[in-house]
Amino acid sequence: MNNQKVGILGGGQLGRMMVEAASRLNLEVIILDAPENAPAKQIEATQSHISGAFNDAAKIRELAGKVDVLTVEIEHVDAQVLADIENEGKVKVHPSASTVKVIQDKFVQKNHLRANGIPVAAYVETPNSNAVLEAGKQFGYPFMLKSKTLAYDGRGNYVVKSEADIKCAMETLSKTPLYAEKWAPFTKELAVMVVRRANGEVRSYPVVETIHKNSVCHLVIAPAQVSGEVLKKAQVIAENAIKTFTGAGIFGVEMFVMKDGEILLNEIAPRPHNSGHYTIEACDTSQYENHMRAILDMPLGSTAMKVPASIMVNILGTSDSMELCYRPCKEALLTDGATIHLYGKKECRAGRKMGHITIVGESMMQVQKRLKPILHAIEPEIERPLTLRPLVGIIMGSDSDLPVMKVGAQILKNFGIPFELSIVSAHRTPMRMVEYAQSAADRGLMAIIAGAGGAAHLPGMVAAMTPLPVIGVPVKGTHLDGVDSLHSIVQMPRGIPVATVAINNSTNAALLAIRILGASIPSVQKQMSEYMKQMEGEVLQKVDKLDNVGWENY
Amino acid sequence: MNNQKVGILGGGQLGRMMVEAASRLNLEVIILDAPENAPAKQIEATQSHISGAFNDAAKIRELAGKVDVLTVEIEHVDAQVLADIENEGKVKVHPSASTVKVIQDKFVQKNHLRANGIPVAAYVETPNSNAVLEAGKQFGYPFMLKSKTLAYDGRGNYVVKSEADIKCAMETLSKTPLYAEKWAPFTKELAVMVVRRANGEVRSYPVVETIHKNSVCHLVIAPAQVSGEVLKKAQVIAENAIKTFTGAGIFGVEMFVMKDGEILLNEIAPRPHNSGHYTIEACDTSQYENHMRAILDMPLGSTAMKVPASIMVNILGTSDSMELCYRPCKEALLTDGATIHLYGKKECRAGRKMGHITIVGESMMQVQKRLKPILHAIEPEIERPLTLRPLVGIIMGSDSDLPVMKVGAQILKNFGIPFELSIVSAHRTPMRMVEYAQSAADRGLMAIIAGAGGAAHLPGMVAAMTPLPVIGVPVKGTHLDGVDSLHSIVQMPRGIPVATVAINNSTNAALLAIRILGASIPSVQKQMSEYMKQMEGEVLQKVDKLDNVGWENY
Repeated sequence: MNNQKVGILGGGQLGRMMVEAASRLNLEVIILDAPENAPAKQIEATQSHISGAFNDAAKIRELAGKVDVLTVEIEHVDAQVLADIENEGKVKVHPSASTVKVIQDKFVQKNHLRANGIPVAAYVETPNSNAVLEAGKQFGYPFMLKSKTLAYDGRGNYVVKSEADIKCAMETLSKTPLYAEKWAPFTKELAVMVVRRANGEVRSYPVVETIHKNSVCHLVIAPAQVSGEVLKKAQVIAENAIKTFTGAGIFGVEMFVMKDGEILLNEIAPRPHNSGHYTIEACDTSQYENHMRAILDMPLGSTAMKVPASIMVNILGTSDSMELCYRPCKEALLTDGATIHLYGKKECRAGRKMGHITIVGESMMQVQKRLKPILHAIEPEIERPLTLRPLVGIIMGSDSDLPVMKVGAQILKNFGIPFELSIVSAHRTPMRMVEYAQSAADRGLMAIIAGAGGAAHLPGMVAAMTPLPVIGVPVKGTHLDGVDSLHSIVQMPRGIPVATVAINNSTNAALLAIRILGASIPSVQKQMSEYMKQMEGEVLQKVDKLDNVGWENY
Repeated sequence: MNNQKVGILGGGQLGRMMVEAASRLNLEVIILDAPENAPAKQIEATQSHISGAFNDAAKIRELAGKVDVLTVEIEHVDAQVLADIENEGKVKVHPSASTVKVIQDKFVQKNHLRANGIPVAAYVETPNSNAVLEAGKQFGYPFMLKSKTLAYDGRGNYVVKSEADIKCAMETLSKTPLYAEKWAPFTKELAVMVVRRANGEVRSYPVVETIHKNSVCHLVIAPAQVSGEVLKKAQVIAENAIKTFTGAGIFGVEMFVMKDGEILLNEIAPRPHNSGHYTIEACDTSQYENHMRAILDMPLGSTAMKVPASIMVNILGTSDSMELCYRPCKEALLTDGATIHLYGKKECRAGRKMGHITIVGESMMQVQKRLKPILHAIEPEIERPLTLRPLVGIIMGSDSDLPVMKVGAQILKNFGIPFELSIVSAHRTPMRMVEYAQSAADRGLMAIIAGAGGAAHLPGMVAAMTPLPVIGVPVKGTHLDGVDSLHSIVQMPRGIPVATVAINNSTNAALLAIRILGASIPSVQKQMSEYMKQMEGEVLQKVDKLDNVGWENY
């Protein structure tokens, strides 16, 4: 599809998955890495690869002599050689040497981001112990002491809890220059993969939530189960950050969400990233394919998710036993929607990334259930209940409607459907209603149940401001026996429908919402069928009882 | 994940995609095929592959000496050597040698299937021209003359249109023994991939529709856009057929659907199949991974689709120009949800399978739209409108309700939503109603709109027998102004909801159905938002007009 040959600095799992994507497009790739049997080399037999370190200037030059485009699967490379090669003009370098240079020094990266108006935690250079002491005074304790370079997976970071820690922290991180960063008490970590063409075009993947364990990425939840507002903000920050760099390729942007909803960019990787593995099974185009497309200046592929929900689990070595690594994989073989990726590494070591498992499903409820046995095989001691984004919203005009509406809420709870419940009054909080209705679809809701009595404007007004199906529950008031509410809710003008159920019957509203979800979520539809079967069974039991006891004694 | 080494006879694209699946599971694979750079060898650099024909007994023995399990990517291999190896007991052969032997002779295959009660077209052995003449008398013209062996992609088949064709047919097919088959005037071709473990466990993938061009698979539509009844029948026949064989692996089962709904099994491939390529992007587990799992006696993976709809297009060489092959691929690069698979073949020839493109999407409507430009790049002269399965069912108690209900039908048509419309009366055709309601979900409907007047039992009775959301339209009768219908429809007992809209307002019923679809199909939700924006615009125009003309002249 493209006659340019690609050279990759580094032949680990990221390089391997790049090669996988490249092969499907008939693209030629040559790998530079020390091991003869590096993961990426194993699945590319048409080229003569180069054995050598990916930061060895001579070897990089040797690779450059064989290809048209150079790229990296790791940022800790010799950026100066890349800059020289770029300047000579024969071979393209993506992302650009200057991008790699800025990013590989985390202090320079922070300066670059701050200068470009991207929100980051406060930080300060600490050339000596006095400066570290000053940082403690400025930021308070704890704060982070960080290596400027060669840091990844938590290596190069030290939590300084008090003045007494400073000496030890500086000794531990003595190999590289340091800077200090204000402690960021985040509530969640998010990540966004952004792909960039050399012309500046960017496309971002969905915002995901990352859960780290011992500073290494453990789980990636896609999409992140946070509000639509936070999703939007994170996406904009990530895209804006990547627009400030030059060159092409995919970038991983890691962020913190603070208690007040503020988002701080933590760091950027100028390459495919662990938090983007899920894109292979869950998105239209994988991060690897989009990286290849970007560096070859081909059109970028869609970054949309093609499945409703996905979770990725990293498989790390726990010892030198490969068998222990295979334990979660063996669970995955028994799990619907789970795909195993092993990286072909011959030796297992504690902490080594040996593979990953991606689980997809028709809903996050399902994916979470599927994850359980796999996770249990890795960490039997820990329960990780996820907070899921609500799929159904229940609103009512007044707390006096709650006794009627809570019956429906209980049904949703019994079915295990994540939902939210609040008071939204058309007449007393009109602007809150507007905001609720207009944001509902973006927040991930699939249906809204609105209960109202009397004039009962809420369901119809909400329906007028959302494309979602709105279910109206006429609540019986003191007069007119609920017929006033019923007619107010059901007799909507042509153009805006409200799905009206019987007076005071929030049970049926909830069941209708579940049927709506079930239209696209097979397991929910199955639950509904079982519920109906159970109802039938209950009535048939009464038939039996009536037959046995007789109508007079019933 | 498994210490057994696999040897594959054949290193074409099917072998290549098997290797891709194997690498992700850390499985070791050795390829036997003549070309040094066979597609499958290109992506497996950890083994020493064997150069030689996959039907060369000595080479097969050489491969057997290096592996634990032998499998095939093509059935035209030396089955006797496989049988000998199997009998020696050191190396497993999957599927079994006898399975390969039965399937590779299409006449023997037919005998086997007929003997096991699988429906096939009438056929007869034709050892000489007299027998062919007799076949013509028995079956009438046209009939098919077929090679027993070495037939694929339509090669080895001859349509005998009249007695005068017989001589030419026999000369054309002179290289192998022949049999005659009754002409099967099918309406559609279906295919099902079935994976079988050695213990007899089978799992089938969704039924797909295949469209051939010059007897070569051109398009694969998943799921097949046929009724639920036909889907079920095809699946059962395919599973039953595969249960009759021995050994493990994936099988492609091709079938004809006749005018009367009867299904005839056409032929079986004992290996991954073109009609299963789509499983890589569209299913939980690809046919290739499930083949590897099956032959290694590992648990089978889920065969469910993970996306709502998919279409696969084959990329065939049209000449020796690779550029022409890349033309549809270049369209695919611009198409959301399209994934390109090129097979690494260095030389292009007319008719050669060079790659394929799989398109996925949130609905078959969307996939069909996405397919268009790609297909246009292959066959600009042909329009291929697909008949899509309905997503919404409109039913009414009587044709007298049609004037009210057709307004809603027009809305669905305008939105491009495939729907069906019929008369189903609760009181006059009760059993038809039961059948309609009970089959609705299996037939692929996502919502039902039911219109009824007076006692108006239809919506509620249908809702009682389906887990789908049912929308009720109260139709106004001669008395009571429609309030009778409204109350009959809306006042459902707890347990069975009907989404009731305003009296006679089938417009809102259709819009509600569209909102329900939109809850899981983003592009439909987007259409709904645009529709609402347009409505707003129309009213605002009237505001302007009123301002300009004045209320007295309006």
